[in-house]
Amino acid sequence: MEIIVINGPNLNMLGKREPEIYGRLTLSEIESLLSSSTGSLGSDVGISFFQSNSEGEIVTAIQNSYCKFDGIIINPGAYTHTSIAIRDAILSTGIPVVEVHISNIYKREDFRQKSFVSGVSLAVVSGFGANSYYLGLAGLVEYLRKEGASSRVSP
Amino acid sequence: MEIIVINGPNLNMLGKREPEIYGRLTLSEIESLLSSSTGSLGSDVGISFFQSNSEGEIVTAIQNSYCKFDGIIINPGAYTHTSIAIRDAILSTGIPVVEVHISNIYKREDFRQKSFVSGVSLAVVSGFGANSYYLGLAGLVEYLRKEGASSRVSP
Amino acid sequence: MEIIVINGPNLNMLGKREPEIYGRLTLSEIESLLSSSTGSLGSDVGISFFQSNSEGEIVTAIQNSYCKFDGIIINPGAYTHTSIAIRDAILSTGIPVVEVHISNIYKREDFRQKSFVSGVSLAVVSGFGANSYYLGLAGLVEYLRKEGASSRVSP
Amino acid sequence: MEIIVINGPNLNMLGKREPEIYGRLTLSEIESLLSSSTGSLGSDVGISFFQSNSEGEIVTAIQNSYCKFDGIIINPGAYTHTSIAIRDAILSTGIPVVEVHISNIYKREDFRQKSFVSGVSLAVVSGFGANSYYLGLAGLVEYLRKEGASSRVSP
Amino acid sequence: MEIIVINGPNLNMLGKREPEIYGRLTLSEIESLLSSSTGSLGSDVGISFFQSNSEGEIVTAIQNSYCKFDGIIINPGAYTHTSIAIRDAILSTGIPVVEVHISNIYKREDFRQKSFVSGVSLAVVSGFGANSYYLGLAGLVEYLRKEGASSRVSP
Amino acid sequence: MEIIVINGPNLNMLGKREPEIYGRLTLSEIESLLSSSTGSLGSDVGISFFQSNSEGEIVTAIQNSYCKFDGIIINPGAYTHTSIAIRDAILSTGIPVVEVHISNIYKREDFRQKSFVSGVSLAVVSGFGANSYYLGLAGLVEYLRKEGASSRVSP
Amino acid sequence: MEIIVINGPNLNMLGKREPEIYGRLTLSEIESLLSSSTGSLGSDVGISFFQSNSEGEIVTAIQNSYCKFDGIIINPGAYTHTSIAIRDAILSTGIPVVEVHISNIYKREDFRQKSFVSGVSLAVVSGFGANSYYLGLAGLVEYLRKEGASSRVSP
Amino acid sequence: MEIIVINGPNLNMLGKREPEIYGRLTLSEIESLLSSSTGSLGSDVGISFFQSNSEGEIVTAIQNSYCKFDGIIINPGAYTHTSIAIRDAILSTGIPVVEVHISNIYKREDFRQKSFVSGVSLAVVSGFGANSYYLGLAGLVEYLRKEGASSRVSP
Amino acid sequence: MEIIVINGPNLNMLGKREPEIYGRLTLSEIESLLSSSTGSLGSDVGISFFQSNSEGEIVTAIQNSYCKFDGIIINPGAYTHTSIAIRDAILSTGIPVVEVHISNIYKREDFRQKSFVSGVSLAVVSGFGANSYYLGLAGLVEYLRKEGASSRVSP
Amino acid sequence: MEIIVINGPNLNMLGKREPEIYGRLTLSEIESLLSSSTGSLGSDVGISFFQSNSEGEIVTAIQNSYCKFDGIIINPGAYTHTSIAIRDAILSTGIPVVEVHISNIYKREDFRQKSFVSGVSLAVVSGFGANSYYLGLAGLVEYLRKEGASSRVSP
Amino acid sequence: MEIIVINGPNLNMLGKREPEIYGRLTLSEIESLLSSSTGSLGSDVGISFFQSNSEGEIVTAIQNSYCKFDGIIINPGAYTHTSIAIRDAILSTGIPVVEVHISNIYKREDFRQKSFVSGVSLAVVSGFGANSYYLGLAGLVEYLRKEGASSRVSP
Amino acid sequence: MEIIVINGPNLNMLGKREPEIYGRLTLSEIESLLSSSTGSLGSDVGISFFQSNSEGEIVTAIQNSYCKFDGIIINPGAYTHTSIAIRDAILSTGIPVVEVHISNIYKREDFRQKSFVSGVSLAVVSGFGANSYYLGLAGLVEYLRKEGASSRVSP
Repeated sequence: MEIIVINGPNLNMLGKREPEIYGRLTLSEIESLLSSSTGSLGSDVGISFFQSNSEGEIVTAIQNSYCKFDGIIINPGAYTHTSIAIRDAILSTGIPVVEVHISNIYKREDFRQKSFVSGVSLAVVSGFGANSYYLGLAGLVEYLRKEGASSRVSP
Repeated sequence: MEIIVINGPNLNMLGKREPEIYGRLTLSEIESLLSSSTGSLGSDVGISFFQSNSEGEIVTAIQNSYCKFDGIIINPGAYTHTSIAIRDAILSTGIPVVEVHISNIYKREDFRQKSFVSGVSLAVVSGFGANSYYLGLAGLVEYLRKEGASSRVSP
Repeated sequence: MEIIVINGPNLNMLGKREPEIYGRLTLSEIESLLSSSTGSLGSDVGISFFQSNSEGEIVTAIQNSYCKFDGIIINPGAYTHTSIAIRDAILSTGIPVVEVHISNIYKREDFRQKSFVSGVSLAVVSGFGANSYYLGLAGLVEYLRKEGASSRVSP
Repeated sequence: MEIIVINGPNLNMLGKREPEIYGRLTLSEIESLLSSSTGSLGSDVGISFFQSNSEGEIVTAIQNSYCKFDGIIINPGAYTHTSIAIRDAILSTGIPVVEVHISNIYKREDFRQKSFVSGVSLAVVSGFGANSYYLGLAGLVEYLRKEGASSRVSP
Repeated sequence: MEIIVINGPNLNMLGKREPEIYGRLTLSEIESLLSSSTGSLGSDVGISFFQSNSEGEIVTAIQNSYCKFDGIIINPGAYTHTSIAIRDAILSTGIPVVEVHISNIYKREDFRQKSFVSGVSLAVVSGFGANSYYLGLAGLVEYLRKEGASSRVSP
Repeated sequence: MEIIVINGPNLNMLGKREPEIYGRLTLSEIESLLSSSTGSLGSDVGISFFQSNSEGEIVTAIQNSYCKFDGIIINPGAYTHTSIAIRDAILSTGIPVVEVHISNIYKREDFRQKSFVSGVSLAVVSGFGANSYYLGLAGLVEYLRKEGASSRVSP
Repeated sequence: MEIIVINGPNLNMLGKREPEIYGRLTLSEIESLLSSSTGSLGSDVGISFFQSNSEGEIVTAIQNSYCKFDGIIINPGAYTHTSIAIRDAILSTGIPVVEVHISNIYKREDFRQKSFVSGVSLAVVSGFGANSYYLGLAGLVEYLRKEGASSRVSP
Repeated sequence: MEIIVINGPNLNMLGKREPEIYGRLTLSEIESLLSSSTGSLGSDVGISFFQSNSEGEIVTAIQNSYCKFDGIIINPGAYTHTSIAIRDAILSTGIPVVEVHISNIYKREDFRQKSFVSGVSLAVVSGFGANSYYLGLAGLVEYLRKEGASSRVSP
Repeated sequence: MEIIVINGPNLNMLGKREPEIYGRLTLSEIESLLSSSTGSLGSDVGISFFQSNSEGEIVTAIQNSYCKFDGIIINPGAYTHTSIAIRDAILSTGIPVVEVHISNIYKREDFRQKSFVSGVSLAVVSGFGANSYYLGLAGLVEYLRKEGASSRVSP
Repeated sequence: MEIIVINGPNLNMLGKREPEIYGRLTLSEIESLLSSSTGSLGSDVGISFFQSNSEGEIVTAIQNSYCKFDGIIINPGAYTHTSIAIRDAILSTGIPVVEVHISNIYKREDFRQKSFVSGVSLAVVSGFGANSYYLGLAGLVEYLRKEGASSRVSP
Repeated sequence: MEIIVINGPNLNMLGKREPEIYGRLTLSEIESLLSSSTGSLGSDVGISFFQSNSEGEIVTAIQNSYCKFDGIIINPGAYTHTSIAIRDAILSTGIPVVEVHISNIYKREDFRQKSFVSGVSLAVVSGFGANSYYLGLAGLVEYLRKEGASSRVSP
Repeated sequence: MEIIVINGPNLNMLGKREPEIYGRLTLSEIESLLSSSTGSLGSDVGISFFQSNSEGEIVTAIQNSYCKFDGIIINPGAYTHTSIAIRDAILSTGIPVVEVHISNIYKREDFRQKSFVSGVSLAVVSGFGANSYYLGLAGLVEYLRKEGASSRVSP
């Protein structure tokens, strides 16, 4: 069971950027914690990571997941609220996606209340800090186990 | 560490009501699963349950949590989208709240896109089926452990 | 064929309340007229009544109709325009519902133009005074006859 | 007591047009059923019919009802949502009007939620299939009987 | 100098229809008054009349004015607020148009506040009762005199 | 002259709940102050109190005021902004109502700017802290004295 | 019969200001033309003029018309679209008002489409250039003659 | 394979009407060009034409296409933006429709941005001048060939 | 303790202007009543008055209150709904302000529902007729006493 | 005559992605078909292709067309609805652009109804599947031939 | 080259009013700084000042600039967002205007986001504190030099 | 003191692109002018330049400014109106930003009125042509001097 964790713009600034909102862990620290935590979710869970500030590169990363990954954890950052292209990329692969956010986006500015991604995601986790990634991952793994071994799209 | 799980209107119909959206587990089955799962979250985690179809009774249940519970898991059902009274009750107690939904509400009707509760919650979990409750609980327990032993409001 | 007639808030004030809008019959007089009129609709038509000012109690009454009634006549009063919980309760039982209003709500204030209930009802009758109940009942009975004897949901 | 039943655009396609929404009866079959049913409403009830696809001809038909008919049953079809001219024609005659719809329009597209006719109608019946016409007629006849013999406008 | 006065739907009901809003003169009485008043505007002013309840016939009447009339007085009635076709017809002929209304439409319902015709008219007169026609005609004649003898479109 | 003071959801939390917004007096302290202050408004002024978190119970309390009270002071709390049922209950009794708020609601969130109750109230007082109740009461008593002894609705 | 013509901000710039929209006549030339034209409206018609760039002074001028003038011609200029104070002043005097505009405001920017004055005016004339004043005056004089000699408000 | 080309209001004015927007060809010249061009699309392609300024007549023309035509090219003119009746007529026949416009309507006024017809059309061509008709026709013929010989609805 | 009562446009017309809305007392009668009532609020309460129809003069009057008055009672009349300048003037002085209205503005036109002043006021009183001034004054005096002797801004 | 066909995000997934909406041809198959079809449009028509998931690269590709291409066929995919940068790039080159869509976007989600590109395009073709490209190309070539040989912008 | 600097309501309170937003310089200190800085902009630059709290006086000041000044620096204060009269005054003179704001208005309340003045200004400077005036002046002087010596409007 | 000037999409087309809006200087000419002008702002002012058509690259450039630059001049071009990612990047660095525009964007299309960048900028300059860059730079330098030597963020 292979999962990819995709992070959008400015999440490479985690730890430096507004720590009172986003916490003090850097993105690579979060990725390390996630990697070491996959053991508790089952020995067959593999995890990969991708980050980009570019909408187009995120679209391509999602397309490239097709037939390679069983599930996607995505924190689209600011593109959550503006990118129909990412929404379409998710639809084009048919892979289950869990949208996560470090902060509780529903407490923030009006323009952060609309997500183009939530409507094509399996589920959403928002507001647990860096722990949102782990909870999203745990939920996704449980979902994939229930849906059965054959969930990966075959070429 | 005492947690109360509050469910709103029509969640007593779980298992009977639109299983393609809400799944086949009844509310008491979900409550049993949550009770037995608390062991994995720590031996000091106690869990209680409340359900009502009445907005006023839910407001009262939240008020009654004051000084008795360290955290609240709430699935306000339809009142998510219409109740400012529940929002105010949460504010009046100051207890950390995690809002959970069985279905992914962001995939559904327009009038389910607005939550009066999310804006006063610590975090939101939506779309993992009955597992949303467990993930919300796990996130809440971790949050409370980090915030320290003294998080319960004293009289 | 068992039908329940559910009335929402302030309909217990009928006859006293703004008679130029709602007429001079009290709710119990309307209920008596409906009871005596069922004969003309067929000897197998039974009719029950429920009224409450509480949204939660109306939700519960709709839930309790499950497996006990073949159809519901509902005048949700002011909750017509504000209650998603009643809408969800109707969906959870799957029983055919006819929404009725004494006054023509489409002639009134803007906030009475939106009904959360109409979208999950079989049909709507609005504006015939107390006669709206009888016409809604007649239409519902004819609909249930056409759909066949097996329309009641079995446990 | 003379009643005219006015049908708007595309209702001449009934039976052919989208039967899953509008049923399988043709307009002339519905008109025959209505004619034969008037007996049950009283021997003094006369009934006439008019259908047109043209907004202007419907306006003229309503104007021509002045001093000739005691009541109008109207299904304005698509003009329900776009015609202020039909609204004004109803106002200009002062004849009581009942608006009927075969389908439950409140379950359909957003642009079918607004009716320019409801605000000048006595009452509305929507969603009982072809039976909406009969129920509207029964309600209108009862209303006219209550208002007294002299309800027809004199020249 | 030839002028045509075009009246839209329900204006043939003038005198009968809601006299407290529209006054007690019939349309033919207003037309007679206008005919006899043209003398005071100049001996070269000819005046014609057209009324229809049909949007399409009004469109055609406007088209037919092309090369035949120097100006149009139009009271589009309810089509004022809904007809883009009449707007386009006016644009297609290039003839100066004055929009008139018997009542002050800016005092009335919200849906009467928007005019598709005003934006392509020379001027608007609203609220003087039947006198609105005469004032609109006087203003149009003065405008045409100023613009010179050659204002009629040549084929 | 009998007055009832009705308080809505979460006002039973006064003193505990967000004192920087709502002050430090409990509801029963406010009620005691009001009781003792009635002397200064006239020896014939009687005062009663009701509080509930339930919309339905508040509706019933308003209905029960019919023929028993000459005036109502209401702080509908969060239901101010969501309850058409309370609005309808006020209309159904015809008793003069003064709406009061402890905080100045016009300084707060957007969703607190709309009141369904203000439109059917005699007057509104908002922002004087607990003193809003006394000022509302003083204004109501003066109003009732001016309107004369017979202002109570007779059965 | 005494009439006052009130002009709002920037109308003192007529002739200099954007002549392609407002024409080449100055305000005093227009006032002279109106004065000399009153003869054709009847020997008993007196006419006065007032212009100000200040909203408050226009309010005062309208108030001062009370008991002194039988009718008001007003071109509120930009205040048409922003001044509720002028609207209230008109209501406070009860004098019939005709709103006039030199350009056809319905052809212009969106913010010029809303008039706070039209809703309290007898009638509106817009788009005839300087002739709008004369046509408005003619219409107002005819209206006042019809309403009778006693139309001036007595102290 | 029989195709009908339906044109709405004011398209009979083509060539005369605003040539800078709509070009210099008359409607009958366009119809001749289309007739002669069908050869290049296949010898089995027949083509008919209909134009009306009346919404009702267009509705009827669409209804009459039922069982007689395999496809419709429609330029609804101004009715594009206002006619639900034409939309319903298209739905009632089930014939594939291509919507065409001479000008690029998406470059024009706001009220021309909404089409009631596009949502029930196979495809849309807008902005190629008179060539829009030919391109729409070519696209429709290719579509019908792919869908097979049996595409015409049988009675 | 010095208080100034500021009245906006048209309030100088009180008594003459629409008495069914605003009552029969003139502004100077209200001012006299307020002056004589200050005794009951404490011998140290001084009261001054200002009225203007001009937004700019009201702005200046508020600015001039700086260091001279301890509190302001303001009825901004129509400027309530349109003046950001008055809002800014209040903010610039930092003096506590109570907004009062004679009528209940929340019962009136939509454009009277928005107040630019309420959001910078201590409190609002609306609907008690002339008594609104006295109640606002009583509330303001009590507020200033609680806040202590030093509430006046020092230069 | 040189034409470039620019495809936006996710169009590289054609054939794999949601074939019920977008068809079964891959993008390179469509490009091959277009290349081979240019012969039928004239021997002087050259065709080039570009695809990117990146908004910035598409902007650059459009800029690079300046002085190199006579026309652009663009399917901006999801950027149709969100990219003002692409709109500005088109404006900056001044090259005629035809916007094409495989599906009929006017039948789809609300957020696909707005195009930032249509307003700066010559024409739009939407809904013919892969054939939309060919029809757009044919229309563009015919347009360029009419506009003459010199249409390419010279440096 | 003569420039006038016009300041609107409450800018006479600079230094006293909310210094955390508007800084600690008084308006006359700012004016002195501007006067002494004109030397660096060229020896031919003359500068004058005007401030008023009255919309009407600002309108008049702008009108009076006609033929007397070559450019206007305006900080319309609160009238920025509400005054169409000031907008029209600017249009009526045709003098180049630069709009300046001390604070960055785009960071503030929603109602400060709309400017009626920006749309008729040459340029806007907002957020540099008192320095906004100098930068606006420098930009205006450079603009006027480029446009040539003859930029002042001749009578 | 190091400043970076960041330009967004299509600004590399300056000089070629719509010169009537954007002027005739190329971007590198503007950059040269800025470089040579820094002398007049102080010998310690260094200036760097960056341009990209890609939103992601601009986000990265802003992130890279962290600890390297004391201030940013940004003209985000079309991304001004659509990019929350750029807004978040600015927030993540905490460096003072001045937003500049060549044209006065407040005079242009509606979709150019909203800026996601202004709300996180120190100040905005819009409409002075290429001079907007210099004025923004001058204002930024003065601001940084005032805030002191230590304004650069330390690692």
